[in-house]
Amino acid sequence: MSRPLTFRHLFGPGPSNCYPEAIEALGHPVLGHLDPLFLEVLDNTCAGLRQVWGTNNARTLPLSGTGSAGMEAAFVNTVGAGDVAVVAVNGLFGERMCEVARRTGAEVVRVDHEWGQPIDPERVAAAHPNPKVIAAVHAETSTGVRSDIAALGRLKGDALLVTDAVTSIGGLELLADDWGIDVGYAGTQKCLGVAPGLSPFTISDAAFERRVKDPQSWYLDLGLLGGYVGTAGGSQRTYHHTAPVPMIASLQAGLARVLGEGLDAVRARHATAGLALQDGLEEMGLDLFAAEGFRLPSLTTVRVPEGVDSAAVRAYLLKNFSMEIGAGVGQFASSVWRIGMMGPNANNASVVFVLAALKEAIAKV
Amino acid sequence: MSRPLTFRHLFGPGPSNCYPEAIEALGHPVLGHLDPLFLEVLDNTCAGLRQVWGTNNARTLPLSGTGSAGMEAAFVNTVGAGDVAVVAVNGLFGERMCEVARRTGAEVVRVDHEWGQPIDPERVAAAHPNPKVIAAVHAETSTGVRSDIAALGRLKGDALLVTDAVTSIGGLELLADDWGIDVGYAGTQKCLGVAPGLSPFTISDAAFERRVKDPQSWYLDLGLLGGYVGTAGGSQRTYHHTAPVPMIASLQAGLARVLGEGLDAVRARHATAGLALQDGLEEMGLDLFAAEGFRLPSLTTVRVPEGVDSAAVRAYLLKNFSMEIGAGVGQFASSVWRIGMMGPNANNASVVFVLAALKEAIAKV
Repeated sequence: MSRPLTFRHLFGPGPSNCYPEAIEALGHPVLGHLDPLFLEVLDNTCAGLRQVWGTNNARTLPLSGTGSAGMEAAFVNTVGAGDVAVVAVNGLFGERMCEVARRTGAEVVRVDHEWGQPIDPERVAAAHPNPKVIAAVHAETSTGVRSDIAALGRLKGDALLVTDAVTSIGGLELLADDWGIDVGYAGTQKCLGVAPGLSPFTISDAAFERRVKDPQSWYLDLGLLGGYVGTAGGSQRTYHHTAPVPMIASLQAGLARVLGEGLDAVRARHATAGLALQDGLEEMGLDLFAAEGFRLPSLTTVRVPEGVDSAAVRAYLLKNFSMEIGAGVGQFASSVWRIGMMGPNANNASVVFVLAALKEAIAKV
Repeated sequence: MSRPLTFRHLFGPGPSNCYPEAIEALGHPVLGHLDPLFLEVLDNTCAGLRQVWGTNNARTLPLSGTGSAGMEAAFVNTVGAGDVAVVAVNGLFGERMCEVARRTGAEVVRVDHEWGQPIDPERVAAAHPNPKVIAAVHAETSTGVRSDIAALGRLKGDALLVTDAVTSIGGLELLADDWGIDVGYAGTQKCLGVAPGLSPFTISDAAFERRVKDPQSWYLDLGLLGGYVGTAGGSQRTYHHTAPVPMIASLQAGLARVLGEGLDAVRARHATAGLALQDGLEEMGLDLFAAEGFRLPSLTTVRVPEGVDSAAVRAYLLKNFSMEIGAGVGQFASSVWRIGMMGPNANNASVVFVLAALKEAIAKV
């Protein structure tokens, strides 16, 4: 049943390889979820999350689920029957937002964009006169595109701005308060260099006041969660559900690593690695997929060359280099590769390694 | 920000200390969630879960959330507006079931019992002529009581039987198929000896056919999850959300440990330790809380002696022995202690240690 452990070089769209500190912390002795020592870990984690989110929101916390649970929490706590949610769609995660929002009973106004292009903030803001929510993805994991959330924040009017920062948090500039993000969710397994399992979440006081008071989800009810994470005020913590203790300890350690290096330095490292990878791919004669000027440094999308078998190249990399890169999504499943350089992998050694391996794989398959 | 690591002896209602194999696996190199090696880990985990559930259900899987996410998955996938859910309540988790079921829009018929007593299967089954669901907790974590789920299974009629097995799975007899459990959810952090973060879940084919086809939760939609865990048939796995890879690797390792020791042996170890603890507490002159004949071996509830400060005793144990025991719940918060002997802690050494420590604490505070 068990086999020798295999190390993978994770250059796909996530999970990324983790910072060693984050892995080490997973193995720490388990603490009770109401132990004062663990509540300190939780408080440290929330404080670190405020920094990577760029927010002072008291209600900034790790949700006990993956990024998609964060997406669901964002919608079930803000919209329901009778509310309008405008959703900008320029990739899979925008599509998913529509589906998750629909299931709350809200009316979804979908604003489609070509995949590979950023969202158009003016078109999104003009799509409905008075939505309760406007939602957009900051860094589209399916296409490798960054959109201008700050511009959408300036145009949002009275709507609450919901933002998916799964593939930007911890690696790209993210200024939730300055940009006017009211509700944000993210993942741990990308630029933060922590394993998948939690969703860093933030909601402003003003959005919290306007929340759905009796949301359809008990597990993701932010009104109840505050009593445990200590954001409801008072020193007493009330049990809601048993927190995933090792994952939170790991996130604390990953955040300490990122903040110790310095957010600016970490972001510069992601930017430099992403740019070098993109330059290198173009030098190999490959075409990048995401629109120029809007390419994510953390996740590069590149077209599979004519006549090359996408899956065979990925299998070659896995077999010969224990290296994972990602396939494309939807109609681009076999015509685009997604190459992530996130967390500890965002460095020049990764660039050289990936370019050399990919070159060999394309030549050999 | 970081402090020396502290080992806690976790004798509360959960999390328990983990099997060493489960902790060790948390630190394994992270694999991609679509890597063939990881899909093998996932398949092994599902196979192991079938054994501890006592089921052949194809749809037996670890949900990416804690036990309460499992509870929510059980209800959102089986009931909605127009459906009736009969819920047996004899403690906090029965109460929670009512609240979670209510949020689906279902009509909840609540059948109350005295806390500390098991449920009355006949009264529960007679509460409504044609419910879609009858739900009950096998092992009430709030009161330390075991209920007869098999009896309820014989009386359920056409209803789907939903069962909470959070504090029984991996430590007590649990025969989902034989007992007529249609939908079950559990936790990893109790008798399975794995950290909190996943919910072992099972649903029969017949219940799956009668499920809510468009449930209000996207994250917990069993119709979508099957495509990833391989229960939807076919060899192709479709991405739903990024799986919490290290937690699943850890659960695989914990299950391998439990099944390697043998389910009967593990259950006997829990039974022996629980009985010895309960005998020892009575020999100390303390009164057990749960009704005789229905006491959980995995979680013992005992009344705080007259004139003893419950919180002071718990603080003394934490400070002097780095030992956690649990407070009571609700109206019994300060009048009952909950003492768990689960997973690796279910053994005679734990019994001797806890009794000696508790005796000293009661004498000293």
